[in-house]
Amino acid sequence: MKWSESHLYTLKEKPADAEITSHALMVRAGLIRKLAPGIYTYGPLALKAIRKVEKVIREELDRRGCQELLMPMVQPRELWEETNRWTEMGDGLLKFENRNGHSFCLGATHEEAITDFVRKDLKSYRNLPVNLYQIQTKYRDEIRPRFGLMRGREFIMKDAYSFDLDLEGAQESYKKMYEAYQAIFTRLGLNFVIVQADSGNIGGNQSNEFQVLAESGEDGLMVCEEANYAANVEIAPRKVKPKQGDQNLQEVEEFATPGLRTITDLAKSTGLAENDLVKTMFFDASDGGDKIKPVAVLLCGDDEVNAIKLKNVLNLTNPPELLNDKEVKELTGASPGSCGPVDLKIPVYSDQALEGHTNFIVGANKDDFHLKNVNFERDFKSEGFFDLCLAKEGDECPEGRGGKYKAYRGIEVGHVFYLGTKYSEKMGATYLNKEGKAKPVEMGCYGIGVTRTVQAAIEQSHDQNGIVWPLPVAPYQVHICLLDPKDEKVSGVAHDFYNKLQENGVEVLMDDRDERPGVKFKDADLLGMPLRFTVGGRGVENGELEWVERRLSGDKSAKKTVAIDEAFDLVMSWLKENQK
Amino acid sequence: MKWSESHLYTLKEKPADAEITSHALMVRAGLIRKLAPGIYTYGPLALKAIRKVEKVIREELDRRGCQELLMPMVQPRELWEETNRWTEMGDGLLKFENRNGHSFCLGATHEEAITDFVRKDLKSYRNLPVNLYQIQTKYRDEIRPRFGLMRGREFIMKDAYSFDLDLEGAQESYKKMYEAYQAIFTRLGLNFVIVQADSGNIGGNQSNEFQVLAESGEDGLMVCEEANYAANVEIAPRKVKPKQGDQNLQEVEEFATPGLRTITDLAKSTGLAENDLVKTMFFDASDGGDKIKPVAVLLCGDDEVNAIKLKNVLNLTNPPELLNDKEVKELTGASPGSCGPVDLKIPVYSDQALEGHTNFIVGANKDDFHLKNVNFERDFKSEGFFDLCLAKEGDECPEGRGGKYKAYRGIEVGHVFYLGTKYSEKMGATYLNKEGKAKPVEMGCYGIGVTRTVQAAIEQSHDQNGIVWPLPVAPYQVHICLLDPKDEKVSGVAHDFYNKLQENGVEVLMDDRDERPGVKFKDADLLGMPLRFTVGGRGVENGELEWVERRLSGDKSAKKTVAIDEAFDLVMSWLKENQK
Repeated sequence: MKWSESHLYTLKEKPADAEITSHALMVRAGLIRKLAPGIYTYGPLALKAIRKVEKVIREELDRRGCQELLMPMVQPRELWEETNRWTEMGDGLLKFENRNGHSFCLGATHEEAITDFVRKDLKSYRNLPVNLYQIQTKYRDEIRPRFGLMRGREFIMKDAYSFDLDLEGAQESYKKMYEAYQAIFTRLGLNFVIVQADSGNIGGNQSNEFQVLAESGEDGLMVCEEANYAANVEIAPRKVKPKQGDQNLQEVEEFATPGLRTITDLAKSTGLAENDLVKTMFFDASDGGDKIKPVAVLLCGDDEVNAIKLKNVLNLTNPPELLNDKEVKELTGASPGSCGPVDLKIPVYSDQALEGHTNFIVGANKDDFHLKNVNFERDFKSEGFFDLCLAKEGDECPEGRGGKYKAYRGIEVGHVFYLGTKYSEKMGATYLNKEGKAKPVEMGCYGIGVTRTVQAAIEQSHDQNGIVWPLPVAPYQVHICLLDPKDEKVSGVAHDFYNKLQENGVEVLMDDRDERPGVKFKDADLLGMPLRFTVGGRGVENGELEWVERRLSGDKSAKKTVAIDEAFDLVMSWLKENQK
Repeated sequence: MKWSESHLYTLKEKPADAEITSHALMVRAGLIRKLAPGIYTYGPLALKAIRKVEKVIREELDRRGCQELLMPMVQPRELWEETNRWTEMGDGLLKFENRNGHSFCLGATHEEAITDFVRKDLKSYRNLPVNLYQIQTKYRDEIRPRFGLMRGREFIMKDAYSFDLDLEGAQESYKKMYEAYQAIFTRLGLNFVIVQADSGNIGGNQSNEFQVLAESGEDGLMVCEEANYAANVEIAPRKVKPKQGDQNLQEVEEFATPGLRTITDLAKSTGLAENDLVKTMFFDASDGGDKIKPVAVLLCGDDEVNAIKLKNVLNLTNPPELLNDKEVKELTGASPGSCGPVDLKIPVYSDQALEGHTNFIVGANKDDFHLKNVNFERDFKSEGFFDLCLAKEGDECPEGRGGKYKAYRGIEVGHVFYLGTKYSEKMGATYLNKEGKAKPVEMGCYGIGVTRTVQAAIEQSHDQNGIVWPLPVAPYQVHICLLDPKDEKVSGVAHDFYNKLQENGVEVLMDDRDERPGVKFKDADLLGMPLRFTVGGRGVENGELEWVERRLSGDKSAKKTVAIDEAFDLVMSWLKENQK
């Protein structure tokens, strides 16, 4: 593509709403443009990158016997009511009535639609297994869209669904997709880790996320190299040593703690370690119900509650929300900093790190007072000890081998779930087994955020001057800066080179605009194609071109001068080597 | 693809809601399945056909310098208010509020979105021309979806938009797209005509439709071979000979016509030709306004009003609707069969065929009475004579050469529009010309119904047994019926053939199911791939396969026996010949 003939405009300024670099770069490089919050037009260059991601996905899935179809984005309410997700999905599912007064939603995910599709064909065990996928625009009504395509409302996703006879088959399907995803993200040139993850309101009880490593990533990851174990911090289990509390239980005693509302203040005042103080937090376990259903959580003063772990312990659909100060006051009679478990009439769940603790300090449920020498069982009832807190860097990895967690940040680009029969039972997707008995089909679902993957590639690979495209995702492989488009000889050399590359299937962007060299170099850095050539008057005089490899900083740009006659062969062998 | 491993199920019964054959065949062949009225899942086979259509479109557009991007389906209200189409598009535009209370619609067309995209980049005349397109799922809230993908709610469309400096440039762009469309539909193997068309509420004043000929087509077409002229009947102009009325004007006379409410009855009773009687019809010209704005139309008794022509004469956005009996009675004091133009206090528009008519009969605006010897000007005021009626087969073609219209039915698969500055003026899409003056950009828009094209191919090409795919759109080129999948030798021959074809890039579907031959042949006919091979025990004994070309009826299926060793070469040369 010649720049002069293309609709491609770069921006010097980063957009005001860009909080992360990849968002800013995508807008500045003309890849995307916002039409509404979380809703973007993908420009020609972005679409090329998207298509490359899609192609790799298709190849890896088709080769594993998956079949592509395309389901509707507009879906009837009745379908979603079969699984109760019309309600459960909450406001993230965009709902509306059409002109005839029927209720529909925009597909945010397609478990219902695919299960409906398959159940209509499903008769006997001979129809299974089957794995169907689509690459499609989805819509989720994010309340606060941000980070460009990372947390957008409208986005492109690949979603696949497997249907198997039994658990064993489902596990094979899961493994097949897991391997497909490994192949896909490896081929795309991304640095990623695979982590254990929560399955959210999709359902099921086994799931892995494919996380592209990047400091700005929204997800916290805990990785133990020794045990080759990694998990999203949302579920990363902790292993903590039980406390060896004094078995000599003391009398409970109330004492004044005027103005001491934080653990830090209380630790200073009492001289105790934060870890030995006990925090009490309150959550609403009503799972979106009309009436608050409060529960208390006890934990060490220096830990943090993990709402996902709590959700799973309480067996809820959505993570419970923290009660606000007013709600806490109504419940306990005190402000959050002065609350404790004694004499509460709600269930108390205790973090595992408190097991064995004795004679500890908690709030007295009376502002500016605490109790000391409080003990489990004797002074209040606890539902038991659970793993309820966020893992931290340095925590011991519970997988053994003596490893410790290292913390990373990641961008979730893929997710595989084992669903079991959650959808098939509710929707009556059954088959007759060899004995003629109706059985619900075993399901799995598998997503890749296509547009998010493109942005993740940029978030992971850029420097202060712009994008550094991984070759497999780059919109163009080669960028030619033609410095003197009006000089016939120079322009001729550039065009010959451009044509020869194109004829041989190389994707080339040639900057033939009437602009200064500085502008062209800046834009080339911003756009970030892997190989750049400069064709200028002096070089052409000497029969030479300048060759620049756009590499990650640290790894310096590789600049060299190459003979015009040899440039084409050098490109072809460079591509061969770097495409693997 | 081996059938045994694919999710492909055919149906014997046609669906109850299928009014046209292609709809029934698509459902029966497992190509599509309804999720809600007008909303379909495209199965794996349909998607393959869709992708083939998309590929041809991309190739022809890219080669002409068009650039692909992808715009959002969810669009903010503010954008559509800039052109007033938020209101003008009516209920066909699906509108809703998101969780934050902002109003959006689902993109039914993208003039606003693309104009917004381009205006933000547009600075100088050097930025032009540009032509951008997308292939995307659109939604129109059809009040009565029908005919499968023909008049669906959710569908895939290619929409392109051109931006030019001036009229001359816009006309060049129009011509380029016109030629691209000719190339596209020719390459897809479709029998189509290009007709003059109305531009609806898209705007502009030049437009052509690409119509695939089929008896069940929704559009009436008038074609004159002599003048090489064709038009949608919505706008097809008529040429009529003026009447030679008696110049001796008679006195108006009221006469009783009890029970004579139709032109046919009146003609019988008076002995006059229907063509000499004058009908009066009433329409609402308020263009969707709150209050009816009635107009009367006078026409010959055997003609029919063309609401599109009337819309254009009245300069409305939407075709005016006929008043109902009650509204007519309130307006005239009489029922529709007894109305006329005399003493009406509303504008009267007369069809051109009435020019020169004198002493004619019209309703008296009094039930069961008519007036005779009524004359223009003397007895009522007419706004003039216009071309207001539907053209009919046999009408003289106004393009000259003495040709006459022949009537056809067509399925609109493509549409090209010259838009002018309708959108650019309203939305401020301007550029600075060489003199530094801001000028609105000249636009054109160009659509192809991708999913509709696939169904049109089937509607045009099928027989009583099933689909007869045109080779360029066929999901698979070759269909192998393996009759004895359990016979090792037979199965070996079939698999070798299948593998060899696949390795050479031929798309093959192999029916390796455990089914009777009759079932396989029936399904092969239903699915309609262009070339079919039968591999069975007896043939393999003799070193032979059966070769069947799936052709349109009339043109009998070409059956022959070919040697196993030669089959591959024969396929390759047949494909080469038939792919052109």
